Amino acid sequence: MTAGALDHELGVGTLPVLVGDGDRVLLIDQRKLPGQTEYFDATKFDDMLLAIGDMVVRGAPSIGVAAAFGLAWEADRIAMRVSDKKQFLLELSEQGKKLKETRPTAVNLAWAVELIEKKARTLIDAGSLDTKEVAAELKKLATEELDHHIDRNRTLSELGAELVPQDAQILTHCNAGSLATCGWGTALGVIRSAHLHGRKVSVFVDETRPRNQGAKLTMWELAQDRIPATLVCDSMAGHLMKSGKVNMVITGADRIAVNGDSANKIGTYNLAVLAKFHGIPFYIAAPLSTIDPTLESGAGIPIEHRDESEITTMHDRSITIDGARAFNPAFDVTPHELIAAIITEAGVLRADFTKSIGAALKLQG
Amino acid sequence: MTAGALDHELGVGTLPVLVGDGDRVLLIDQRKLPGQTEYFDATKFDDMLLAIGDMVVRGAPSIGVAAAFGLAWEADRIAMRVSDKKQFLLELSEQGKKLKETRPTAVNLAWAVELIEKKARTLIDAGSLDTKEVAAELKKLATEELDHHIDRNRTLSELGAELVPQDAQILTHCNAGSLATCGWGTALGVIRSAHLHGRKVSVFVDETRPRNQGAKLTMWELAQDRIPATLVCDSMAGHLMKSGKVNMVITGADRIAVNGDSANKIGTYNLAVLAKFHGIPFYIAAPLSTIDPTLESGAGIPIEHRDESEITTMHDRSITIDGARAFNPAFDVTPHELIAAIITEAGVLRADFTKSIGAALKLQG
Repeated sequence: MTAGALDHELGVGTLPVLVGDGDRVLLIDQRKLPGQTEYFDATKFDDMLLAIGDMVVRGAPSIGVAAAFGLAWEADRIAMRVSDKKQFLLELSEQGKKLKETRPTAVNLAWAVELIEKKARTLIDAGSLDTKEVAAELKKLATEELDHHIDRNRTLSELGAELVPQDAQILTHCNAGSLATCGWGTALGVIRSAHLHGRKVSVFVDETRPRNQGAKLTMWELAQDRIPATLVCDSMAGHLMKSGKVNMVITGADRIAVNGDSANKIGTYNLAVLAKFHGIPFYIAAPLSTIDPTLESGAGIPIEHRDESEITTMHDRSITIDGARAFNPAFDVTPHELIAAIITEAGVLRADFTKSIGAALKLQG
Repeated sequence: MTAGALDHELGVGTLPVLVGDGDRVLLIDQRKLPGQTEYFDATKFDDMLLAIGDMVVRGAPSIGVAAAFGLAWEADRIAMRVSDKKQFLLELSEQGKKLKETRPTAVNLAWAVELIEKKARTLIDAGSLDTKEVAAELKKLATEELDHHIDRNRTLSELGAELVPQDAQILTHCNAGSLATCGWGTALGVIRSAHLHGRKVSVFVDETRPRNQGAKLTMWELAQDRIPATLVCDSMAGHLMKSGKVNMVITGADRIAVNGDSANKIGTYNLAVLAKFHGIPFYIAAPLSTIDPTLESGAGIPIEHRDESEITTMHDRSITIDGARAFNPAFDVTPHELIAAIITEAGVLRADFTKSIGAALKLQG
């Protein structure tokens, strides 16, 4: 078990990636939640390939860390028969490519694969370690990454908790919790930290159609920590706000441009517009690694379109006519003007976002 | 079959109430749509009591007309053994009360029951008809009401069709179609009429959680008339509007205050706010009978709250954790400021709504 995640009680039951000694990882099987809490036992590359492709593990940061372990283990396996350093790097890179292809749009997956490959190259280039020793270092790096992710979430959650009012009635969307982000969470992390510090918090959870991550995962996480939660349909946000039942909206993000425009689960943009209309602050909580320094604005963020059957069926049965067409964008982009603040581990960033994000990235180096 | 509804091709397959000779009504069984198109054969009061209570027929105007037939048949049955006029009216009123109790919030149900009872009293008071003859007149009245409903829908739809742009990309919510409104429809009637007049129309249909009337009923109606339709989740409206895929939003209404504030299916208010934000016109289509002259504003409209299980389960299986709490308002209220126009059979009403609605109600007398 990693140390950083277990020095407190909250959030422990929802850790998606539990590490033994670096040679074995238990992944909470997110396909089976909330009905069953089962762990998927991963000890080799192929286990992780399956776990990511089959969505045993989901949420961009969680996928990234799972991939880092898978590739580090593969380095170990390659090193058993390959002492030639060039050949070692070549084979590692081929396997990294396979991993990336399992979920082509998850930015953190590519990022994690590249992190491992870069470290391997650096160590090989330095020349003093053999391939087996390099592989051992890569396992250490994966473990460190897991801890760093959780630490960053804890830090940003502490900062965000300051924004949570006493008697908070918070609306959130999708799952930006422990499950998605290696531990503690981002949007849900802020809520956890506020709860930990004794704020009276209750949460309205959007079911988050079509995949219902709110109903399945966020409701489950909040129940683990006994934070009061009420499930609502995505269509109810306006009515809740108009009735005075919401005083804060917070979500995670999947990619943030340098001007603050933020992509997140489809439906987030609805909430941001509604929050603006009702004078309720709308916050994004995300680590700096979510910011894409190559993107000037949200216009450049590609929107993944998923299969129509996600909308037309539920529990393997049709909810509509045979042959119905459906439109299924998985994400939308919220323009920075609608965002009160972006909560990161480097601080609570506010408008002018281009300046505040630029400064935060510079500090990070 | 009633004449008014069959002089054209569109909308015919979706008529919820088909009348033989006034002694027999076939109700399209809305519980079984869209999987099966079956008719429920009603010939007596108890059939209608069951049909309304069990939601064989739904949609306020459709329920009202079904109830009118049920009560007229009951008048016939009472008249067979009761010639005393006072006793006849008393027994009729008792049965009317039973009908009203099946769906206490449907305004049109009470309205239809009162229409039949008032007619019975008037005829009895006039003195020239015996109870059997009165009962025969009540059946005629029910048949006339069905025709009037369809005529009103056709009229308002013609007026509304003028507002539909060429190359219309219309977003609608729930089912304000033929099924709900005795025939042709209100919001969907406007779309049908525009299509009939050769406008190029395509429709985005909100699935309308939690009961999915959009996915089940509106998708089915549009398919019957081969009007291009695409199913979307309620959460996608903002993204669709921002992407330029919607140039008109139209819904029905369940109750309208004299200042124009309109109650409709939960989620309608979200669409109205989003449409305003994107500069897209948001229309309500509803007959004048939807206007409640006793209500000054939407603040007085009671919001029905339905069972939590409508949200927490789908196809009889849970979509969330055991014991999840949910909040399930069935309607929301859209303030008049967000409504571009209310399309009625008396004209397209615009702000100042208090004046335009007042004038329309006065004309109606």
